Amino acid sequence: MSKQELVVLGRDGVEGCCPALLAAPLDDGQAEALAKVFKALGDPVRLRLLSMIASRAGGEVCVCDLTPAFDLSQPTISHHLKLLKQAGLIGSERRGTWVYYRLLPEMTDRLAATLTRPAGQPLSEATPAGAAS
Amino acid sequence: MSKQELVVLGRDGVEGCCPALLAAPLDDGQAEALAKVFKALGDPVRLRLLSMIASRAGGEVCVCDLTPAFDLSQPTISHHLKLLKQAGLIGSERRGTWVYYRLLPEMTDRLAATLTRPAGQPLSEATPAGAAS
Repeated sequence: MSKQELVVLGRDGVEGCCPALLAAPLDDGQAEALAKVFKALGDPVRLRLLSMIASRAGGEVCVCDLTPAFDLSQPTISHHLKLLKQAGLIGSERRGTWVYYRLLPEMTDRLAATLTRPAGQPLSEATPAGAAS
Repeated sequence: MSKQELVVLGRDGVEGCCPALLAAPLDDGQAEALAKVFKALGDPVRLRLLSMIASRAGGEVCVCDLTPAFDLSQPTISHHLKLLKQAGLIGSERRGTWVYYRLLPEMTDRLAATLTRPAGQPLSEATPAGAAS
């Protein structure tokens, strides 16, 4: 990973964004930063784009290969990609006519860690039968 | 975990909601279901509520203990809690005057798995220096 990438991640608040959600109450700043990333993921088009980018063999995808998969305009797709990028989930590089996107797995790794239960926190076995009603 | 809880989780589409986001392109249905859960997490008040509920010793929190932490009305807090519940992230039980909330860790476990890279997918070492710019 390049130094520039680390700086970009740091600037976007990745370090601060992903405390352990399940271990202690978040403060306002932590909640704001983390909510921005989850909000970026809270859209089906953006999730499809992210999954297409993340799963592509070779690690990157030309925007020209993403757009045809959707019944949406190029500017709309670009807007969704911009939101994913602002959230620190993907990076991009222009080469010639096209922009190429790739996953920034540091962010998804951090989100996964954020959602992981603290060690030693089992499923409650004392759940009342009607508790989920 | 009670059978009723499993039914509720099934009805809310937890099984279908959480495919491996990074391993293969999502289809429309998968993306819709997963986006709903991330959208529920995409709000700082809901993240603070979820972290307060998840981290509480004993596993559940009275709504009467949640509301004072926010400069928001009881109905607003209840609305946020309802969205977390609809997303399958928390369960609730009324006992007497108050409703008690607790984490449904099956959903956060599934989300964490969803965001985990497939085995054998390393960080790209061929990242161009300007790729995150």
